[in-house]
Amino acid sequence: MQLDNNMRSKEDYLKALKDGRKVYYRGKLVEDITSHPILRIAALHAAKLYEYQDRLYEDSKLGKISKFFKVPKSPQDLLDRHKLIYDLTLYCNGIFNISQAIGSDALFALMITARQVDKKYGTDYYKRVEKYFEEVAKQDLTLATAQTDVKGDRSKRPSEQVDPDMYVRIVDVRSDGIVVKGAKAHTTQSAVSDEIIVIPTRAMRENDKDYAIAFAIPTNTQGLKMYTRPIDEIEGNTSAILSKKDYELETLTVFDNVFIPWDRVFLFKEYDHAGTLAMLFATYHRFTALSYRAATINLYLGTALYTAEANGIQNEKHVRDDIVDIMLYKEIMRMAALSAAYNPIISEGIAIPNPVFVNIGKLYSNMHFIDVIKALIDISGGIIATLPSEEDFLSEEKDVILKYLRGNIDGYSRSKILRLSKELAASNFVGYLLTLMIHAEGSIEASKIELFRSYDYSEAKELVRKILQ
Amino acid sequence: MQLDNNMRSKEDYLKALKDGRKVYYRGKLVEDITSHPILRIAALHAAKLYEYQDRLYEDSKLGKISKFFKVPKSPQDLLDRHKLIYDLTLYCNGIFNISQAIGSDALFALMITARQVDKKYGTDYYKRVEKYFEEVAKQDLTLATAQTDVKGDRSKRPSEQVDPDMYVRIVDVRSDGIVVKGAKAHTTQSAVSDEIIVIPTRAMRENDKDYAIAFAIPTNTQGLKMYTRPIDEIEGNTSAILSKKDYELETLTVFDNVFIPWDRVFLFKEYDHAGTLAMLFATYHRFTALSYRAATINLYLGTALYTAEANGIQNEKHVRDDIVDIMLYKEIMRMAALSAAYNPIISEGIAIPNPVFVNIGKLYSNMHFIDVIKALIDISGGIIATLPSEEDFLSEEKDVILKYLRGNIDGYSRSKILRLSKELAASNFVGYLLTLMIHAEGSIEASKIELFRSYDYSEAKELVRKILQ
Amino acid sequence: MQLDNNMRSKEDYLKALKDGRKVYYRGKLVEDITSHPILRIAALHAAKLYEYQDRLYEDSKLGKISKFFKVPKSPQDLLDRHKLIYDLTLYCNGIFNISQAIGSDALFALMITARQVDKKYGTDYYKRVEKYFEEVAKQDLTLATAQTDVKGDRSKRPSEQVDPDMYVRIVDVRSDGIVVKGAKAHTTQSAVSDEIIVIPTRAMRENDKDYAIAFAIPTNTQGLKMYTRPIDEIEGNTSAILSKKDYELETLTVFDNVFIPWDRVFLFKEYDHAGTLAMLFATYHRFTALSYRAATINLYLGTALYTAEANGIQNEKHVRDDIVDIMLYKEIMRMAALSAAYNPIISEGIAIPNPVFVNIGKLYSNMHFIDVIKALIDISGGIIATLPSEEDFLSEEKDVILKYLRGNIDGYSRSKILRLSKELAASNFVGYLLTLMIHAEGSIEASKIELFRSYDYSEAKELVRKILQ
Amino acid sequence: MQLDNNMRSKEDYLKALKDGRKVYYRGKLVEDITSHPILRIAALHAAKLYEYQDRLYEDSKLGKISKFFKVPKSPQDLLDRHKLIYDLTLYCNGIFNISQAIGSDALFALMITARQVDKKYGTDYYKRVEKYFEEVAKQDLTLATAQTDVKGDRSKRPSEQVDPDMYVRIVDVRSDGIVVKGAKAHTTQSAVSDEIIVIPTRAMRENDKDYAIAFAIPTNTQGLKMYTRPIDEIEGNTSAILSKKDYELETLTVFDNVFIPWDRVFLFKEYDHAGTLAMLFATYHRFTALSYRAATINLYLGTALYTAEANGIQNEKHVRDDIVDIMLYKEIMRMAALSAAYNPIISEGIAIPNPVFVNIGKLYSNMHFIDVIKALIDISGGIIATLPSEEDFLSEEKDVILKYLRGNIDGYSRSKILRLSKELAASNFVGYLLTLMIHAEGSIEASKIELFRSYDYSEAKELVRKILQ
Repeated sequence: MQLDNNMRSKEDYLKALKDGRKVYYRGKLVEDITSHPILRIAALHAAKLYEYQDRLYEDSKLGKISKFFKVPKSPQDLLDRHKLIYDLTLYCNGIFNISQAIGSDALFALMITARQVDKKYGTDYYKRVEKYFEEVAKQDLTLATAQTDVKGDRSKRPSEQVDPDMYVRIVDVRSDGIVVKGAKAHTTQSAVSDEIIVIPTRAMRENDKDYAIAFAIPTNTQGLKMYTRPIDEIEGNTSAILSKKDYELETLTVFDNVFIPWDRVFLFKEYDHAGTLAMLFATYHRFTALSYRAATINLYLGTALYTAEANGIQNEKHVRDDIVDIMLYKEIMRMAALSAAYNPIISEGIAIPNPVFVNIGKLYSNMHFIDVIKALIDISGGIIATLPSEEDFLSEEKDVILKYLRGNIDGYSRSKILRLSKELAASNFVGYLLTLMIHAEGSIEASKIELFRSYDYSEAKELVRKILQ
Repeated sequence: MQLDNNMRSKEDYLKALKDGRKVYYRGKLVEDITSHPILRIAALHAAKLYEYQDRLYEDSKLGKISKFFKVPKSPQDLLDRHKLIYDLTLYCNGIFNISQAIGSDALFALMITARQVDKKYGTDYYKRVEKYFEEVAKQDLTLATAQTDVKGDRSKRPSEQVDPDMYVRIVDVRSDGIVVKGAKAHTTQSAVSDEIIVIPTRAMRENDKDYAIAFAIPTNTQGLKMYTRPIDEIEGNTSAILSKKDYELETLTVFDNVFIPWDRVFLFKEYDHAGTLAMLFATYHRFTALSYRAATINLYLGTALYTAEANGIQNEKHVRDDIVDIMLYKEIMRMAALSAAYNPIISEGIAIPNPVFVNIGKLYSNMHFIDVIKALIDISGGIIATLPSEEDFLSEEKDVILKYLRGNIDGYSRSKILRLSKELAASNFVGYLLTLMIHAEGSIEASKIELFRSYDYSEAKELVRKILQ
Repeated sequence: MQLDNNMRSKEDYLKALKDGRKVYYRGKLVEDITSHPILRIAALHAAKLYEYQDRLYEDSKLGKISKFFKVPKSPQDLLDRHKLIYDLTLYCNGIFNISQAIGSDALFALMITARQVDKKYGTDYYKRVEKYFEEVAKQDLTLATAQTDVKGDRSKRPSEQVDPDMYVRIVDVRSDGIVVKGAKAHTTQSAVSDEIIVIPTRAMRENDKDYAIAFAIPTNTQGLKMYTRPIDEIEGNTSAILSKKDYELETLTVFDNVFIPWDRVFLFKEYDHAGTLAMLFATYHRFTALSYRAATINLYLGTALYTAEANGIQNEKHVRDDIVDIMLYKEIMRMAALSAAYNPIISEGIAIPNPVFVNIGKLYSNMHFIDVIKALIDISGGIIATLPSEEDFLSEEKDVILKYLRGNIDGYSRSKILRLSKELAASNFVGYLLTLMIHAEGSIEASKIELFRSYDYSEAKELVRKILQ
Repeated sequence: MQLDNNMRSKEDYLKALKDGRKVYYRGKLVEDITSHPILRIAALHAAKLYEYQDRLYEDSKLGKISKFFKVPKSPQDLLDRHKLIYDLTLYCNGIFNISQAIGSDALFALMITARQVDKKYGTDYYKRVEKYFEEVAKQDLTLATAQTDVKGDRSKRPSEQVDPDMYVRIVDVRSDGIVVKGAKAHTTQSAVSDEIIVIPTRAMRENDKDYAIAFAIPTNTQGLKMYTRPIDEIEGNTSAILSKKDYELETLTVFDNVFIPWDRVFLFKEYDHAGTLAMLFATYHRFTALSYRAATINLYLGTALYTAEANGIQNEKHVRDDIVDIMLYKEIMRMAALSAAYNPIISEGIAIPNPVFVNIGKLYSNMHFIDVIKALIDISGGIIATLPSEEDFLSEEKDVILKYLRGNIDGYSRSKILRLSKELAASNFVGYLLTLMIHAEGSIEASKIELFRSYDYSEAKELVRKILQ
């Protein structure tokens, strides 16, 4: 592929990660993430973005930029974005590539909110957001977004916590900017992103105004520290196939008196807009989630089909029921994404995916991913929990072992698909994924609250009123 | 505790494991399993049997022996057995101790079948079984039971397979015994047991008679090879708490022309009894499963309660719903076990747990364990997937990390319960356990087939007939 | 059958119903319920109690009395009671016969509570309850129990309601007794019972003490009015088979300044015991419910089997799955009842079925009855919703119709089983039953609250504490 | 509204029903369906089509015709059709109006199949279909479609049945047309339609070619007999509100040697196209079903909301969960319909709603309608099963009854919403609807078979292949 001379390459991206950022893994500071035996996989995964064909388009104002930075104005734009995320996920072996997805989700939400705050308070946030957006787009950067605060006691609001740092907050206001303190939980791919955008996790009241804050910083900003989750599926599970190719890391992201210059501050104590910003981002990002989850499920669907054949049970009715369960999940994700794209809300000239469809799809996704796992386990059999190790398959004993692993096909071929099935359904990967599928982009409870609160009941109520007249 | 002088001690048991058995782990032959850094945990777990208080009783014939070898004759005997398994599981930190449980399950089934075969064919199997049983009981041995063959193409019967060794079979008959070949899948604790009992996995037809075979051998018998599953939760997940204390290993167990003397052969080509033996063992062992699963669920119930408190959400209704879901699972397991114990079938003077209750409980257990995991994940939050590592908690950064992990309680205390929650719901342990809970002791499909086939419909049919007269 | 000369006969019972009681049906006062074309079915159903073989036993104090009035003292007594209810339900074509079941449930609860109140307050309630119990038992009476108040605004306590009569309350205290006012909802078989026992529906606080009341009255007491629900399945659905043989009626039961003499008052303002009484009754009555529901499910199981055969789909796997779903429901009901009987709590010398098993069984019953209906509908096909009427089957067109209703069997035989299937799954009967199965004897929410509140978590917590030490 | 002079009016439609058609109800021939006290409701319901605003459009060839007869050529046409069905359902109080919907579904399928058969066999079916279509559209007729044969033994094919008439078949071929015999089950609104279209219910093999037939006839054709299901919800349940306004009738439709002229025969023994025709119709009609079901669910949603308020439980969390369950059903129906419309397959120039989305939506609809009912029952309480009758509410006792039915609102207002809740969830209506929702437009099993068989697995398989390389 011949890229434009001025576009960022995979190599440019990887090189930029060596910038003194503070990433910790298993108790140690990581000097160079691109050469770390475990974490580099996450970097290389992210880098696939820059290999992906057809990822660019010609913007009338900014020139050739990534399609992720195309601000959606119409159903077609949202459909294109859905397809971009879906296809890039397939390109990355079924694993989501968040590098420019989550950041653009946050930027679209910030554009809308900034305009609303500017109108109400006469501020100039939109200009700042726009300037930042143009820089990021032109430089073709990757961005993480840190939303979920560590929260402390979940029954208390930000300002009521024993330790005031349980939500990221303003600790100092200077002429050139602000200083913030606090921590965000599970920030995906932070350690391999160029920039981090920070937004509120919830609606705020006046007492919480020091917590009503949004901003963006380079990942090597002083005072920013990232503690990475252990990637057990590689270190413990030598049979892992997928995790050696693609995974995304997560960090506990600490802001230890981090300074933000004013032009990077996008919300500052306007607490009455924190909720809108949080919800708008969630809507965009749940739309993103529907899109990648539909693609990820192909991993389960394909593995289930091949495993059923390998076991010689492809014609069993319970296998058919399992396959249909997986299919239901995939297609309901797609239906939700497509319907949300075709029926957007337009706010400040920007298209927002339909929140009802997005949230319905999200709730279904949270509740039923477990059915997908159950289906694959049911088809695979107990062997995925008790399969010998990769080292066994390479040892002198391998012929004996493979002899006894044959199914409807030879033992070597079957052991390959079983290893993938094990990784997807009976390994640490599944523990991680299951938790993410239930909690990422908003919990079951959060989705129910949002739907119940914001749903338009008027049609249903009007119908019953008419009948009871 | 003062044990009888002549009773086997923990040390005796561990010492006996150094007998030249062929155990492989990650491609290497394990010289001494009791000193292997990973596998010794399974041995020490098994050894807890010998520490357990009150595990012995005075048998009128055999003297002081393990309660596991008390042949059940009455509801009370089955209730005692249920309680023994439940309490020993709690003693072993919620992890089943199979050491004498599965072997005695197999021996009870063999006693009944042996008498039936002897009656029909004039054989002397019962004498052999009885002699073996008395040896085992007096020596206080541990026993694995290998039932599930590797099976090859699941759509074909044993004698129809491309490779005739897909089910363990007789390859030679000699004056002093027989020679067998084949392999059994996922044999629990084989590598740390004194003996292995082998029984058929299914009903057989005449063509399959070379596969209709049952026998017992010492674990160090020549030609027996055991390939252990990798224990990823310890090697990869340094935060693991439970797996460092207790786990059970699984092997692919290969019989490479293994010789069995006649007095250890308990079924020999009487293909018409293979199904009965398989089903009787399954009934006893599913009763065992109900008993240990009820105990294991306490891990989830207790962790869910403490995690909810640590997060400050103990009064949320969705938490209550989650807790009740876990409770439902535990109590339906208990109800099934108790009902099966109180309503046994007596065959050849031996009490068999009621098969309907056993299978109903088993089916529920297979179908709904996933609800238990979902409940714990819902309560725990995404943090269990993204928690920093054990090494982080021990590093210089620990104070920063713990500051931000506080909930309703301090960060240190919360991190402890979160680590356990992670292990139980978002780690490799859950992948392994989920698969076992769906497949061990018979799959969902197997339970449905058995229930549908053997259920007594007469009461229901008679009622409808009466109404329609 | 030769009954004792002095035992009450079916005829005695029916005759006694003509006592001037105030029963309303479809806007009219019913003069003689035993000759009312619709309501008499409920009376004849109740009367089957007196036909039932082996319903009596010799009590050491009271002589020959109904087994329903045997105060349970042991597991065996509770098992016998379970079997009595199960078998009598089968005798009555799968429809529960509440006549002496619910009343004795209430009396056992009153006996225990009375003793507790007497101990605390020096009252003499136990004597009153005992005297009433002996009268009822010796006269072999039928009893309804009215517990659920109409409740008004569910978010308010009794004393907080706009209209103070939303819970039955004391409106006057006289030297010879008390006067009560209010109404109870859905009192089963009130209109065909000899007596009505009234107990509180919930725990009370001091402000609610005028509502903390229990008593018993004859059904023809002045001021008592019963408004019967319409029995649509007979009037509209001429094809109904079962409802023409057996059903139980329900009333809105109004107490319009009803006088109760002191010896029939069993709780009087001791508000701190209202909750215990309510819960004890619920425990007994849920045990009763588990017992009859296990029997009732045979209607669905038998009909599903015959319908599958009639349709020629008895070998389809989805039919097998449906049958197993029905079986699960039946057997979990039985397991819960048996486990509750075998593990009672003994209070004041009386055996109470184990509340955990009772409530777990009850909750399962509420949540999953709908699966039973879905299973029968799945097997039956759309024809049960569109089947021609009874009149069609008797008309000149019947031969044409029956020709086209043949399945695997002739059209006449198939139409018979389809009519029953329609009644059970696609008729008004199912609407009524489904609601009852979800709400009767306590709603889903009520069961969850009770379980969550009263469960003993110590074992689970202790296990986790031990691990985390 | 000022209709075009030449457009058919409600009165025209009703008058045309008096044409000697043979409709039987409860054993009697119905002389004039428009004056029959029960069946006229179905006729008046159908007639609402002609009152509905904006139902017409200007076709370039046929002039002003019903929008139902607009042949879909694009996503927008399918979206318009979805909206038409949704809105007309709301107009008819939440009850589907099938009058021109199902007939046009069949005609679109016939247009496509006719062209395919014509191409293969040189027949002239398309001309016949087009001519018929133009007549129907110009005359603005209502049409029933009879697809489901009575089927006899479900385990046998049409030609294997004991009685050869179990599927509608050709019994004579004449120069002017053909004679058919057999019967179709549950034909909706046949008795109040102008015409009936008949199509095959399944794929056929060569042996079944006499059953491979499609045609259309006027409803008063000689030999056609319709046996209507009893409408119990009106005759038995005087409280019924909705059923007195709107319902659709169903018949067993018998073809007793019915003659069809050649120009009305649209498939004649071309057995290899029977399956395509059946499936194409199913696809169109399932799209229709998704559209009306989304509208019908508003009945449940609105009633649940009002009932929760009436009971004073609108802020309970379990009520919120119930409401969200209903919402999920409604929105998944909408998502499926919208996605199917936006992503059609174009065949012979005609837009077919996307079969994957249609079948996924349909399967969800079959499986989860029961959740909607459970949710409404959970909110309503047991009172909907035991509510006094309409006659009680009109009697002298009404004040007493209404006093005790108050909730968060007065008794009269609450009794109104409870009556609707009863009709929707605890009455014969629910038995009928539940069966239809599970079976109408294809059973759960049929949907699974179709999805499993026709799904495009290539993307999923390719992904796994790539990973395992």
